[in-house]
Amino acid sequence: MTTTFAVPTIDDIRAAAARIAPHAAVTPLLHSPALDAAAGGTVLLKAEVLQHTGSFKLRGALNRLLQIEPHARAGGVVAFSSGNHGQAVAFSATLLGMPSVIVMPKDAPPIKIERTRAFGAEVVLYDRYTEDRVAIGRSIAAERGATVVPPFEDPYVVTGQGTLALEALTQASAMGYVPDAMLVCCGGGGLLAGCALAAEAVSPRTVVHSCEPELFDDTARSLEAGHRVSNDPAHRSICDAIVTPEPGEFTFSINQPRVGRGLRVSDDEVLRAIAFAVRELKLVVEPGGAAALAALLAGRIETAGRTTLVVTTGGNIDPGILSRALSFS
Amino acid sequence: MTTTFAVPTIDDIRAAAARIAPHAAVTPLLHSPALDAAAGGTVLLKAEVLQHTGSFKLRGALNRLLQIEPHARAGGVVAFSSGNHGQAVAFSATLLGMPSVIVMPKDAPPIKIERTRAFGAEVVLYDRYTEDRVAIGRSIAAERGATVVPPFEDPYVVTGQGTLALEALTQASAMGYVPDAMLVCCGGGGLLAGCALAAEAVSPRTVVHSCEPELFDDTARSLEAGHRVSNDPAHRSICDAIVTPEPGEFTFSINQPRVGRGLRVSDDEVLRAIAFAVRELKLVVEPGGAAALAALLAGRIETAGRTTLVVTTGGNIDPGILSRALSFS
Repeated sequence: MTTTFAVPTIDDIRAAAARIAPHAAVTPLLHSPALDAAAGGTVLLKAEVLQHTGSFKLRGALNRLLQIEPHARAGGVVAFSSGNHGQAVAFSATLLGMPSVIVMPKDAPPIKIERTRAFGAEVVLYDRYTEDRVAIGRSIAAERGATVVPPFEDPYVVTGQGTLALEALTQASAMGYVPDAMLVCCGGGGLLAGCALAAEAVSPRTVVHSCEPELFDDTARSLEAGHRVSNDPAHRSICDAIVTPEPGEFTFSINQPRVGRGLRVSDDEVLRAIAFAVRELKLVVEPGGAAALAALLAGRIETAGRTTLVVTTGGNIDPGILSRALSFS
Repeated sequence: MTTTFAVPTIDDIRAAAARIAPHAAVTPLLHSPALDAAAGGTVLLKAEVLQHTGSFKLRGALNRLLQIEPHARAGGVVAFSSGNHGQAVAFSATLLGMPSVIVMPKDAPPIKIERTRAFGAEVVLYDRYTEDRVAIGRSIAAERGATVVPPFEDPYVVTGQGTLALEALTQASAMGYVPDAMLVCCGGGGLLAGCALAAEAVSPRTVVHSCEPELFDDTARSLEAGHRVSNDPAHRSICDAIVTPEPGEFTFSINQPRVGRGLRVSDDEVLRAIAFAVRELKLVVEPGGAAALAALLAGRIETAGRTTLVVTTGGNIDPGILSRALSFS
């Protein structure tokens, strides 16, 4: 695949913000004395776990779906995802009166299948060992005239996610702060790309950093190498929402010249961050949504005397993992 | 004790709001599609769990401490509390540069003792079976020239708590809503009184309701009887933060002519509400802080086609109770 998308502009992100405003929540930017004390500086926390469907994915999904021409709406949308993207597409489609099909592996956790159905989607299950989900999705799209909604390799998805940074940096400014750094959980790099574009335009002093599981640090290594590199698929991480094979071609082309060094966290550091969020912030954060908070708490970046903006991106945590985090620290 | 306090006015609450504004968080008023669906109407949720120290008690404590004359500040403050009030007083005193003593029973959970100390207080332990905490507190106050900070029977505490309703009703109005009902967790009645006074002045159409554990429904029964009645102290509830012997004399004098009927919830309904908050709202709510949400979810009041404002008052939950709630439903 060759990227043929132009790099989005801040005007594209502002247009996305206006487009999704009637449907998405403006999530709070929290300033907690407990976090300041832990960091020895000022920390502003974007509580995107409070977004509808429990993750930032709603922003990109809504922005993409709102681009579908009226004549194509009846065909609906299709997405491959067992997680937050699928739930966001299902919720957005139902909200906008479109049918949705979410293609999920047969062995996905039953709670995720149920939840996606509860948002109004038709769930199509496939066998991840013998079937090709892309072929299944394409055939559904062709049969029904449905629009495929990719999780990150799409300019409208990227600008939708970028509204998070535009919103957070505007909130920070209203509170009198210009963040020195912005820490963003990173899988395929769509949120990172949207945040990098927004920060470049409205807060150029703010350095945006990717935060990844240490064994799925493809963006960090790609930034160091200057080209895209992949993860070893044999590795495992509890951060399921941000475990991706490699950076997207489009998203990496945006991120490579714009973001700072990549930060890495261990699963134990993520569990400690989840427990901290419960105990001190009263927020429920899922592992993949806690990577940036974990990087901050583990001291992966200098925070003393500085202002750091940290994004908690999602809260759809398995109850067993949450209980494990609570007993961990 | 005879109440000699005048009934506070909305101007007193507005003054409290201005006084605490530099130190307290403005907590978000959330509008969640999941809650609307559960209620069949519009629900606005005041996420006061996101207040500093994890509960609304900060508002009253700050407002009371900010009234202490400069010459009396060095003597500091003293409070009896093993919970949110003690933590709020400790945090506020440290913030304002005053010493604080919190008198707690020897058998209070170690985590609460640690947490109160971490906020900067000196913790004085007593034996609840052989010692009189009021005598201990008075002797400390006399020796050190410290000011006693009561948990609810105080006009500055009541007006401080009232800032929560003033803030929430102003936020609701900015979102285009006038709540038909406001559900408030109730122990001694200080928050309820502050909310009733604020609603009466700025949103007279909004009926304020107390929400209590069914075995500690002293406010509900007192409202029904027209005078204060007590709870059976042999009863038990997981809602530790709002388990009180009877309504305060001062707070009940405010509440009796101003609030609607009292709502009651069981411990199981509270556990289900805590699980709902984690799963759908991504908020951590403690049992005593979840009584109002439990009353809403259990259908204790008509919500279909109406606008209901529900307050989650605190998030300092024991990890064991949280795990129990997660496995409960």
